[in-house]
Amino acid sequence: MNSVVISLGGSIISKERLNLKLMEEFSETMKSISTYDKFGIVVGGGKLARTYISDLKKYNVNDNILDEIGINATRINALAMTTFFDDVNSKIPTNINDAAEMLHNYRYVVMGGTEPGHTTDTVSTLLAERIGSKVLINATSVDGVYSSDPKIDNDAKKFSKLSYNEAISLSIKNSTGAGTNVFMDITSLTIAKRAGIKIFVINGFDLNEYKNILYNEKCGGTVIS
Amino acid sequence: MNSVVISLGGSIISKERLNLKLMEEFSETMKSISTYDKFGIVVGGGKLARTYISDLKKYNVNDNILDEIGINATRINALAMTTFFDDVNSKIPTNINDAAEMLHNYRYVVMGGTEPGHTTDTVSTLLAERIGSKVLINATSVDGVYSSDPKIDNDAKKFSKLSYNEAISLSIKNSTGAGTNVFMDITSLTIAKRAGIKIFVINGFDLNEYKNILYNEKCGGTVIS
Amino acid sequence: MNSVVISLGGSIISKERLNLKLMEEFSETMKSISTYDKFGIVVGGGKLARTYISDLKKYNVNDNILDEIGINATRINALAMTTFFDDVNSKIPTNINDAAEMLHNYRYVVMGGTEPGHTTDTVSTLLAERIGSKVLINATSVDGVYSSDPKIDNDAKKFSKLSYNEAISLSIKNSTGAGTNVFMDITSLTIAKRAGIKIFVINGFDLNEYKNILYNEKCGGTVIS
Amino acid sequence: MNSVVISLGGSIISKERLNLKLMEEFSETMKSISTYDKFGIVVGGGKLARTYISDLKKYNVNDNILDEIGINATRINALAMTTFFDDVNSKIPTNINDAAEMLHNYRYVVMGGTEPGHTTDTVSTLLAERIGSKVLINATSVDGVYSSDPKIDNDAKKFSKLSYNEAISLSIKNSTGAGTNVFMDITSLTIAKRAGIKIFVINGFDLNEYKNILYNEKCGGTVIS
Amino acid sequence: MNSVVISLGGSIISKERLNLKLMEEFSETMKSISTYDKFGIVVGGGKLARTYISDLKKYNVNDNILDEIGINATRINALAMTTFFDDVNSKIPTNINDAAEMLHNYRYVVMGGTEPGHTTDTVSTLLAERIGSKVLINATSVDGVYSSDPKIDNDAKKFSKLSYNEAISLSIKNSTGAGTNVFMDITSLTIAKRAGIKIFVINGFDLNEYKNILYNEKCGGTVIS
Amino acid sequence: MNSVVISLGGSIISKERLNLKLMEEFSETMKSISTYDKFGIVVGGGKLARTYISDLKKYNVNDNILDEIGINATRINALAMTTFFDDVNSKIPTNINDAAEMLHNYRYVVMGGTEPGHTTDTVSTLLAERIGSKVLINATSVDGVYSSDPKIDNDAKKFSKLSYNEAISLSIKNSTGAGTNVFMDITSLTIAKRAGIKIFVINGFDLNEYKNILYNEKCGGTVIS
Repeated sequence: MNSVVISLGGSIISKERLNLKLMEEFSETMKSISTYDKFGIVVGGGKLARTYISDLKKYNVNDNILDEIGINATRINALAMTTFFDDVNSKIPTNINDAAEMLHNYRYVVMGGTEPGHTTDTVSTLLAERIGSKVLINATSVDGVYSSDPKIDNDAKKFSKLSYNEAISLSIKNSTGAGTNVFMDITSLTIAKRAGIKIFVINGFDLNEYKNILYNEKCGGTVIS
Repeated sequence: MNSVVISLGGSIISKERLNLKLMEEFSETMKSISTYDKFGIVVGGGKLARTYISDLKKYNVNDNILDEIGINATRINALAMTTFFDDVNSKIPTNINDAAEMLHNYRYVVMGGTEPGHTTDTVSTLLAERIGSKVLINATSVDGVYSSDPKIDNDAKKFSKLSYNEAISLSIKNSTGAGTNVFMDITSLTIAKRAGIKIFVINGFDLNEYKNILYNEKCGGTVIS
Repeated sequence: MNSVVISLGGSIISKERLNLKLMEEFSETMKSISTYDKFGIVVGGGKLARTYISDLKKYNVNDNILDEIGINATRINALAMTTFFDDVNSKIPTNINDAAEMLHNYRYVVMGGTEPGHTTDTVSTLLAERIGSKVLINATSVDGVYSSDPKIDNDAKKFSKLSYNEAISLSIKNSTGAGTNVFMDITSLTIAKRAGIKIFVINGFDLNEYKNILYNEKCGGTVIS
Repeated sequence: MNSVVISLGGSIISKERLNLKLMEEFSETMKSISTYDKFGIVVGGGKLARTYISDLKKYNVNDNILDEIGINATRINALAMTTFFDDVNSKIPTNINDAAEMLHNYRYVVMGGTEPGHTTDTVSTLLAERIGSKVLINATSVDGVYSSDPKIDNDAKKFSKLSYNEAISLSIKNSTGAGTNVFMDITSLTIAKRAGIKIFVINGFDLNEYKNILYNEKCGGTVIS
Repeated sequence: MNSVVISLGGSIISKERLNLKLMEEFSETMKSISTYDKFGIVVGGGKLARTYISDLKKYNVNDNILDEIGINATRINALAMTTFFDDVNSKIPTNINDAAEMLHNYRYVVMGGTEPGHTTDTVSTLLAERIGSKVLINATSVDGVYSSDPKIDNDAKKFSKLSYNEAISLSIKNSTGAGTNVFMDITSLTIAKRAGIKIFVINGFDLNEYKNILYNEKCGGTVIS
Repeated sequence: MNSVVISLGGSIISKERLNLKLMEEFSETMKSISTYDKFGIVVGGGKLARTYISDLKKYNVNDNILDEIGINATRINALAMTTFFDDVNSKIPTNINDAAEMLHNYRYVVMGGTEPGHTTDTVSTLLAERIGSKVLINATSVDGVYSSDPKIDNDAKKFSKLSYNEAISLSIKNSTGAGTNVFMDITSLTIAKRAGIKIFVINGFDLNEYKNILYNEKCGGTVIS
């Protein structure tokens, strides 16, 4: 079973509303791929969830319940995404175990978050590890990993590749600083490292990027390996 | 066990964003009530869900999955509502059975929809029937049941009371017409009738209405019995 | 995936005892069909459930729990029905979501009711809508839809076809009258209408009817479309 | 927590129909007991289930599925029984673990069978062991344990008491013979022995028997200890 | 669907540690078999579980909870066993129903115990009955069924075959005696008898035994039929 | 509801075997505490799990499944721990949501891990955050947090207190170095920081430490706040 996992960041699939046009084009792209048998697709939360959460924060609501709300929002997005596929799950799995079982039955399995404390990036790497995927695409709104936030710093330099340890160091540096340049959390990178999963951080709006990776393992973003 | 069920329509609790101020005030009102021991609170979907659903409709998505998305949205709203209570469930029940079990443990149980084909009004009456409530408050954005849509027809007349059969006839008439004046669906009214549940249709923004009903069984809206 | 849903009314599959002979013949008929890939079979409750329920009614038992008992009885009937098939589920799904997942794995999926407030006719249309079936067979003990109850009214006229709106009007008329001629509930017809599901109401004891519909979309009963 | 478990044999609670009068009187008796805090009530299947099963046997149906059908029937009976209690579960637990959790919340927990291969007598002793009950009432249609089947053998002698080992030997002897005198299966007796649970085998139609046991640990039937 | 069930006794797969070498060799043997389509593999508990349980016994812990702990240990062993197969479940089923569903999807399904009161031998026969297997291999640390315990009694005689009734009598005799020669419990043998499942009791360390049975229905141990 | 969460490291509760004596003493200590109403107890895996896992690693088993095995082992330990309490759960919750629901019903809730990628320390802080605990005891085999590994470095200095940021920095430093001095993972510390949970890292074998913290918020270990 030759499988790949794709993490679709919330910023890719939703703005004020769901970015259905991209979701449709993404699904068409995935259906055109013949190099892989199984596709795990992990969908983020996006704007709507963030609005709910930021409003509730003003009422001093428990962060754990806010995380739950965010996770529920990712599952709604995942449900919407399933509608663009045929050979796909109709229930959204709530843990890695169930997603792995479903991937035995379907060519595409779409899911969102699992539990508070895990980002959808971490869910993606856990799923990749569980089903033995060696390729993970992290589709974000930036076109790779930068030395600093390219929206703020004109001298920010994009990395074409990083070792796992370099990526972890950078993630740590960013996590503890102003937090404007966090491309993936430390837990997800640590799992990728132990499982030897090659990560491609790409501009998720560029459909050719997915194809280049899935056919040639090449991309215009950053490869972490 | 003296219990009441309140159906909070989506139009009450969400506009562009969640109406957190109302949710907080509503929870304070409920906490002040001493005439009932148990409160089942069923929360609707509101604006956000409708936006998702109307966008997806353009892509010819299966209505059944749209219903599922709508139901998931009501559960997020329910989760948000729980944060304003203390003696309340921390998981949102997905069927009447589980909600009934939870009401044994908590003073307040908040839930959303259950499955496609059931409105949250129907969920409310099913819950009321199961736990033996004889009072159901249907909190909407209109201040009662009218002979025709008051936003369109200046001659629309508000009913202060209706028999179950009158309400069912009116619901049937409205369902098959232009559909601008559907106050409650036929299934929910039929269940209320068989279980003898008194329904108070009120303006859900007016907090005094809840108090008047829960202390005196009186309201400025419409009583169906 | 070319699928069909069949609603087997309780009056077809059970009298004093389960009508096992019919269940066996029905299964043989279904196994002979080559025009469809997937079959959703929704089984009603029948005599045994009704006896339990009518006895309990005398003890003023909550209708909601009576509905639960009725649903459990349909699931026992469904379990019995599975024994006549091979490529079939061994657990009875309790909601539409699970049934849809199971239909990915099996050629035949048999289920009963889902939750109080939903008839098995409604379950059938919800399942048809979810899995994209355009044909629904409603197998009853009457050979079609009549203008009035043919057992009572000699002038009752059988319709060979009805539009969705005509069927809904007739269902409303029957629901609010003496209730002796209710062929399908309003909710199920409303769902069929929104999903464009063609309904064939037939005499479920006549095995040729199933074949004629599944091969030629013709029947001696009533077509609602 | 002072608890007792009662196994209500199918022959007690159902004949052609559910024996609702007995179920009501039994519940009134239980509500009158002040010597125990918690009551686990395990309900058997009875006539209806046996009819289904014996009919299906003629079609060479898998015994395992027949057991499942029988278990589902016990759960319907359990659901019916719950309607006669107030401080009681509204879902029927499907394993001992869930029943034990529920007994923390309710004074009365009613359940049926759990899985194929376990009689409801075995379920009763497992529940008693799990919740630490030292008294188990086995309510049957015979008024105790006899040396041979009293309906066949006029010389059959009723035991007023038996040791666990004597009861096990008798159960083995009966199981391997004509099987007309099996009062409890070997598994259930073995569990009772290891847990030191005192079993009272009584005529379940005699309401005074329950009271005598629960107040004085005396009965007109057979005590196994 | 041509299926077989194998019960791997705890004494085979674990000593002080998991016997991973045997587990790997066993899996290779199973993968080489072409005469069967589906394999149910039920795994016992072994040394580690027994240590936990015997230690806890000194603290007067409820036997029911000790059984639960033992069952959890079998599930860990089952999870470890899955890692040696490819076309295999990734969740361990906790009841026969779920295992049967999984066997529709996978060539190999590995499970442990189900609930207190059922040995893994009983689970094996229940699974075999449910999925219609006519062959059950009981892999133990002894090379067949003996007239008495061969470790104690030099005159112990190995049976090459036993009828179901002979096996049941022997099991009863052993159960009520010193208990040093219990090869299978009475419940499991009773189920095998009613379902007509041929049982091969073999030395589970001898890989050729499995092959001989699966290709020729021959073994050096004991056949119960 | 005044609650506290205690994380009992695997090194505390198990060596070659379960440390039942400590578990009993720990439970007695907890039962003697009158300053808190609710106790969440999260139990680690210990020696047995580590042996299984290290053996399986030699067979190149997927780390994700090894994590699952480790999590299952923590749940067995949790089940064992429940036997020393009375007002305690009898099922081990597998996620924070269920644990929070159970804490409404029981004074003590014992659980183990939840899913791969989360340590039991992270589970502890997530539980504390969810139920609003402001005190978390992290019981380990070292008597606090040191500047370097005290077993290796004679100059290692114990901190009596650390800010969240200092603790996070130290955890990062340790995680990326030789890994011999990791007292808590970064995720758990980050959650503690956002929720304002005061962490007491103590020698879990010293029963007075628990009492001093629960009565006076004082300890001989390290306070992170």
